[in-house]
Amino acid sequence: MSDWTECLKFGINLTKQTSEVRELLTNQLQVHLKSSQADLVTETDLRVETILKSAIRDKYPVHRFIGEESVAAGECVELTDSPTWIIDPIDGTANFVHRFPFVAISIAFTVNKQVKAPFGIVYSCVEDKLFYAQKGRGAFLNGEPLNASGQEDISRCVVVTEIGAERDDLALSTMTSNIFRLLRIPVHGVRALGTAAVDMCQVATGGADAYYHIGMHCWDIAASSIIVQEAGGVVMDTDGSPFDMMSRRVIAASSTAVANRISQVIQAFPCRRDDEDQWEGLGGGATV
Amino acid sequence: MSDWTECLKFGINLTKQTSEVRELLTNQLQVHLKSSQADLVTETDLRVETILKSAIRDKYPVHRFIGEESVAAGECVELTDSPTWIIDPIDGTANFVHRFPFVAISIAFTVNKQVKAPFGIVYSCVEDKLFYAQKGRGAFLNGEPLNASGQEDISRCVVVTEIGAERDDLALSTMTSNIFRLLRIPVHGVRALGTAAVDMCQVATGGADAYYHIGMHCWDIAASSIIVQEAGGVVMDTDGSPFDMMSRRVIAASSTAVANRISQVIQAFPCRRDDEDQWEGLGGGATV
Repeated sequence: MSDWTECLKFGINLTKQTSEVRELLTNQLQVHLKSSQADLVTETDLRVETILKSAIRDKYPVHRFIGEESVAAGECVELTDSPTWIIDPIDGTANFVHRFPFVAISIAFTVNKQVKAPFGIVYSCVEDKLFYAQKGRGAFLNGEPLNASGQEDISRCVVVTEIGAERDDLALSTMTSNIFRLLRIPVHGVRALGTAAVDMCQVATGGADAYYHIGMHCWDIAASSIIVQEAGGVVMDTDGSPFDMMSRRVIAASSTAVANRISQVIQAFPCRRDDEDQWEGLGGGATV
Repeated sequence: MSDWTECLKFGINLTKQTSEVRELLTNQLQVHLKSSQADLVTETDLRVETILKSAIRDKYPVHRFIGEESVAAGECVELTDSPTWIIDPIDGTANFVHRFPFVAISIAFTVNKQVKAPFGIVYSCVEDKLFYAQKGRGAFLNGEPLNASGQEDISRCVVVTEIGAERDDLALSTMTSNIFRLLRIPVHGVRALGTAAVDMCQVATGGADAYYHIGMHCWDIAASSIIVQEAGGVVMDTDGSPFDMMSRRVIAASSTAVANRISQVIQAFPCRRDDEDQWEGLGGGATV
């Protein structure tokens, strides 16, 4: 099972079987406030993560987990050599609560602390779009192969980004200044769907040419980073260094040229790494 | 035909029949640059507008038109007492060129210079979502009735907006500062799909609580402004005055309270009115 294909198939079936998210979207939701007013959590987040982890644990008892909700409840983020499932049960929780029609289940699978994980799955539930990629075997959307645009000219790019849940002045001024500087290059446009996982998958489809984000967590982008790379795109840190799943900074782009240009223009604000000691669920600035 | 229902039915059939947009989305596009790099126009824009106008003229020979592409070609924007179809053949042209999956045909119908027009139709082609509303008879999405969220607390709102095609420093700094100030209230999040018509329809669905835009044109928002109002939402100018289709400024919101709060926070930059003398297609800062 060196390529983990069996695990990928299991993950895909599991993700698509969790129709609970789509069903619940039309029902009244019980909403709690998590770290800030912009960072909402629902009963459904917790329920979906429990369902996914329970099913995976039954099938693969020795595998480990990093999950948004269990981390928020105090568990550590620790990438080991063991096979590890990195789960965001609902990426786009604010969308979900408001019924803005983009929410996703994001599942990445890593082993031996690999930077590029064996596979990633993003299921955009309302759109019924299943993105997935397997290392060395390409990226797919509902079974059709995906290709990044290959665009190398930043001034012809559509760029996707997210503000996230940070609301302090430094974070907000950094993020809005980044948008200002990008538009001034100029770029063709800036978009935001409200889910990091689905935003980033737009780069894999070629519909967008770049995505960047500061302040998100590993579970938001672990799966889509594999999908973008397998579609021929590149991922890196916003400071231009190699992609680091735990750094809470990412650029995904159609080409190295575009990624480098974005890294020159945008600035980051300080974020505590996901794997720095024990991440504190409350006040940690979780994003979409 | 006082309620213009026959015209509405004709418009809906015409819009859905124009499958050309969906088909062309998967083909290679011949793209020209219009007023700026961010303001793209395709052969398809022109083709769709011609198809729609030709079909309407055959059926209603005395009706008048305001269309994005004919205005760009030098025609006047003049709202008269005559029945007038206001057409954006492809709202979200940049999305269309890039294949970012949100593009819409927008058709509004006005008579006697009414502020609230008899009907509006927005067809989000890739999503296959048909929004429409008829004055006094409600708003619908694929036949299902729409209701705005009714949210009155700005700090619990998802807000949609667009940057548009303006790239001068005043416009860009105004727009990014507006986003900064909104987030600082705070709001739950800011979204941008890249098409004013579809963005604004999100308010009608209740998925978003507000939309604002500065610099768009009447054909971008004429149809969706009716849809929002018929879904129970409100529309006004960004300065808090009554909605003016030609002013190139709009707030659409779940409630008057939210619209007023947004109007207090955001600032506008100077835009030449759509009906001021002859609008110059080139350099006029057309948006999405």
